[in-house]
Amino acid sequence: MIPDLLDIATLRAGFAAGAFTPGELVDEVYDRIEAYRDPAVFIALRPRAAARDEAMAADPSLPLAGLPFAVKDNIDVAGMPTTAGCPAFAYMPARDAAVVARLRAAGAVPIGKTNLDQFATGLNGTRSPHGAPRCVFDERYISGGSSSGSAVAVAAGLAVFSLGTDTAGSGRVPASFNNLVGLKPTRGLLPASGVVPACRSLDCVSVFANAAADAATVLAAAQGVDAEDPYSRAPETVALPARPRVGILGAAERIGGNEAGYAALYARSCAVAEGLGWTLVEIDDAPFRAAASLLYEDAFVAERLSALRGFFAQSPEAFDPAVRAILERARGFDAADLFDAQARLMGLRRQAGAELAKVDALLLPTAPEIFTVAAMLEAPIALNAALGRYTNFVNLLDMAAVAVPAGFRADGLPFGVSLIGPAFSDAGLLALGDALHRAGSPGCGVSRRAAPGALAMPEAARISIVVAGAHLSGMALNHELTALGARLEETTTTAPDYRLYALATAPAKPGLVRAPGFAGAGIAVERWSLTAEGFGRFVAGVPGPMTIGQVTLADGRRFAGFLCEPAALEGAREITGFGGWRAYLAAA
Amino acid sequence: MIPDLLDIATLRAGFAAGAFTPGELVDEVYDRIEAYRDPAVFIALRPRAAARDEAMAADPSLPLAGLPFAVKDNIDVAGMPTTAGCPAFAYMPARDAAVVARLRAAGAVPIGKTNLDQFATGLNGTRSPHGAPRCVFDERYISGGSSSGSAVAVAAGLAVFSLGTDTAGSGRVPASFNNLVGLKPTRGLLPASGVVPACRSLDCVSVFANAAADAATVLAAAQGVDAEDPYSRAPETVALPARPRVGILGAAERIGGNEAGYAALYARSCAVAEGLGWTLVEIDDAPFRAAASLLYEDAFVAERLSALRGFFAQSPEAFDPAVRAILERARGFDAADLFDAQARLMGLRRQAGAELAKVDALLLPTAPEIFTVAAMLEAPIALNAALGRYTNFVNLLDMAAVAVPAGFRADGLPFGVSLIGPAFSDAGLLALGDALHRAGSPGCGVSRRAAPGALAMPEAARISIVVAGAHLSGMALNHELTALGARLEETTTTAPDYRLYALATAPAKPGLVRAPGFAGAGIAVERWSLTAEGFGRFVAGVPGPMTIGQVTLADGRRFAGFLCEPAALEGAREITGFGGWRAYLAAA
Repeated sequence: MIPDLLDIATLRAGFAAGAFTPGELVDEVYDRIEAYRDPAVFIALRPRAAARDEAMAADPSLPLAGLPFAVKDNIDVAGMPTTAGCPAFAYMPARDAAVVARLRAAGAVPIGKTNLDQFATGLNGTRSPHGAPRCVFDERYISGGSSSGSAVAVAAGLAVFSLGTDTAGSGRVPASFNNLVGLKPTRGLLPASGVVPACRSLDCVSVFANAAADAATVLAAAQGVDAEDPYSRAPETVALPARPRVGILGAAERIGGNEAGYAALYARSCAVAEGLGWTLVEIDDAPFRAAASLLYEDAFVAERLSALRGFFAQSPEAFDPAVRAILERARGFDAADLFDAQARLMGLRRQAGAELAKVDALLLPTAPEIFTVAAMLEAPIALNAALGRYTNFVNLLDMAAVAVPAGFRADGLPFGVSLIGPAFSDAGLLALGDALHRAGSPGCGVSRRAAPGALAMPEAARISIVVAGAHLSGMALNHELTALGARLEETTTTAPDYRLYALATAPAKPGLVRAPGFAGAGIAVERWSLTAEGFGRFVAGVPGPMTIGQVTLADGRRFAGFLCEPAALEGAREITGFGGWRAYLAAA
Repeated sequence: MIPDLLDIATLRAGFAAGAFTPGELVDEVYDRIEAYRDPAVFIALRPRAAARDEAMAADPSLPLAGLPFAVKDNIDVAGMPTTAGCPAFAYMPARDAAVVARLRAAGAVPIGKTNLDQFATGLNGTRSPHGAPRCVFDERYISGGSSSGSAVAVAAGLAVFSLGTDTAGSGRVPASFNNLVGLKPTRGLLPASGVVPACRSLDCVSVFANAAADAATVLAAAQGVDAEDPYSRAPETVALPARPRVGILGAAERIGGNEAGYAALYARSCAVAEGLGWTLVEIDDAPFRAAASLLYEDAFVAERLSALRGFFAQSPEAFDPAVRAILERARGFDAADLFDAQARLMGLRRQAGAELAKVDALLLPTAPEIFTVAAMLEAPIALNAALGRYTNFVNLLDMAAVAVPAGFRADGLPFGVSLIGPAFSDAGLLALGDALHRAGSPGCGVSRRAAPGALAMPEAARISIVVAGAHLSGMALNHELTALGARLEETTTTAPDYRLYALATAPAKPGLVRAPGFAGAGIAVERWSLTAEGFGRFVAGVPGPMTIGQVTLADGRRFAGFLCEPAALEGAREITGFGGWRAYLAAA
């Protein structure tokens, strides 16, 4: 049977086992949409038969074959109008947006266009003529926005994943309010051509999913340079440690900015992180909050006007009143004001950088509180601003973020946290987010179930080196490794066919020698890891007669490691029996 | 005696030999200033005695000990008014600008404040109430600007080096018109606190000198993070090859944009570059010219207003008419216009990047023509715009540039070219610029003499690897090196004490073995170089039984290179007599 929680691994396993077909999954999803209580989630659906046919035709070897997804209605799907939540603005795109085209090329099937805060201007979900999608847990509460419909669709099991956009937090706040994973990738990593701009230099296409692994799969299928998007960037990888130092809010800020239930859940999330072996570091969040306030309260808001100027001049009455008020205010900033604001941002970036230097990533609440729809409509600007406290700064400071579920209040409303790291740390943030998500056990979406399988930390960026002598921990040359940022990965022994010699150098050095056919006890070694650059610098500094070659460990894995030149064995004393250099020195 | 050309190496040698003292050098410089025909070069001089005392007191071990330098009057020197060429704007700074403070800490002695196009707004040198400094070769002609006085001071032998600023070309155009080296460093590399902003996000402090080596010395003494400058950046190094591919103008553009004498001299410079072994690649300069036009003709100009808004509102009459006209126009751009322009720049950056991917650096005329003061005053906006054709885009595209002298027209007026490379390629550009400067033999400044000594290409960033087998040029695994960007540095032989074996691997591999005491003919090898990261990746991929250790070449130099594990020699055939792997394979 098709599960209520639609995660990629379970669905692909179901396809592979013949438990259900992609066509049946599409039918199930359409049935659920028809039955769902909230009519404000989708603005338009594709014809069911077209989606079913596309799913049935997908090559099963593709990574997203036959998986139905929902698309925020500011992203083009060929043949469906793009409205951006403003019917008078609607146009009919001839082509899919680049991100949609790439996902379809990976086998995924778009099923419909989702509701949003008009022109993606808002974090609450009420700024739409199509109604306000409601939190999946309590229909009195907002869904969050601007990607309101995309979040609810996934949380309610109406799509496997969905696309949102995120300028100020639109891909994270609704994830938090609906118990979802929300990936706000590095700026420019997902292609933006065919997306209605909000703040073009900051806009990111975002992904809602039931597990970080699913968001990672979607990201991998869709990322890469888009020649038609001037803000597009080539993918890079900034590695994060598996047990990071994370920056957290100080106690005063936790109480000041968060309602009581959320503050307690945030404290719990920090404890869960600590339980994972992460190090908590209280940071000063003042520069982040100051940067956050620039986005709507200073000249940066004028980028929203840049995108819509012609239409706004012609049809001001077509706009939601809150959105119109924001664009009206944007008109008051001149170009010199914007240069002033950009200079202030550079200063705040410097200050924020000093805090970020203390940690690998930030662990913050995704939103400080959640509001009822009624409260939101009474104070649409002020409450919206409150929602962006921990999200607005992220794109301005060129950071990536992953929002993950982090527990429930006593009244059943969900809480979420975000891991926020440097540009291009997306893969690491997803792995850390997945670990935190699983450890906190909130499950996902309205089902509160957990997707199977964990997302591993990508490690490809580091190169290992096996050391057997003076570079061992605590020994004379170990600092050469640590100065290059090397990390101790394991203490182990070599395969049995290695002998160890005390070379006749001054001072004596250990010569590790592979001796085919010899069956000893293995030689004690440590495996360290470095970046490719650090490894290169390290190897370039290794003096003769030491060499770097491949060393086989006791379990058969091979890594670069210290060996020696053949000539160095003349006059050397075999010390294999000591089991290692440290033991030999201790005995000498 | 004190030479007419004041280069750092000659002056330091003179101090060291006791030929003259720092105090005598200061006196000589003040005497020359008093005697110089053009009264418009300096706006203010320090008292001679104070400068002499400071020079005499400098610690001789400092890199710039006792060397007098001139400072553009938009850069603070404590105790001297900063006017930015606008007397009504003048203020008395309590502290040196950060860049001046660092140079004084390195022993250099400021002697005075130089004339400039008001508020550094101009490339011609005529926009100043203190008069227009003249080209040192012909007083009918402009000096170039905005750093007019700073360029003339060095070119006329009135200072050892000088500081300018460069937003649109103000540190390069006047270098070109006065036969000087002008370094426009990477944005943010030299500290900008204490400098009157023009376009704060683009402004660079620049250096005028008689040799690229002198500019490099000044850069090294002054670069580094400035906590008070939000646009400051930490130094990095982007390496350039010693024999680069340089992008040059196509024939049509050379004629279209350059008067005849300059076009011929540009062709000569390209030929000189080719003679140095550089590869010339014609590029499409359209995206660069389009970016250049954004600086004054679009909303970017409003950053000049951002810096001066309050003063401009109060005292519009205090401004030079051309500068006032520019600021008036800047008022017409709103914040959304600027976002539009910034998006256009991102698109042009993408297009320019496609051209830059074909080359290591650009080799362009610094200015397309030179004008008389009379002509300039008749068309102050249009002719100024023409001057920035090859300089305006550089800061907008976040590139570094070095302008160097490149010959003289028949009428005795100088021509200059600029090497323009990626951010943080400053050291490489200086070395390339020095090679081109020396090869073209125009000398420097009004004396047309050449400073002794050449500036070597910094090579620290690359790591060498000696290869003896399948990684040799044209052989099966050579692509592993070239795919990582490796460069063939030399074909040579090892020291005599190496033997070569054909290992019993499949396929057979060469085992290079150091054999102490053996005196053979050396083994044929090639030395390649890679970045540290590339070297790291390469070494990590070397399979056993090959190892990487230190290999000694015939001339005694040592580099990382291919060796092998001792166990690999079992069953191996000695092939030392063939002299190398290539010869062995040819004979087999």
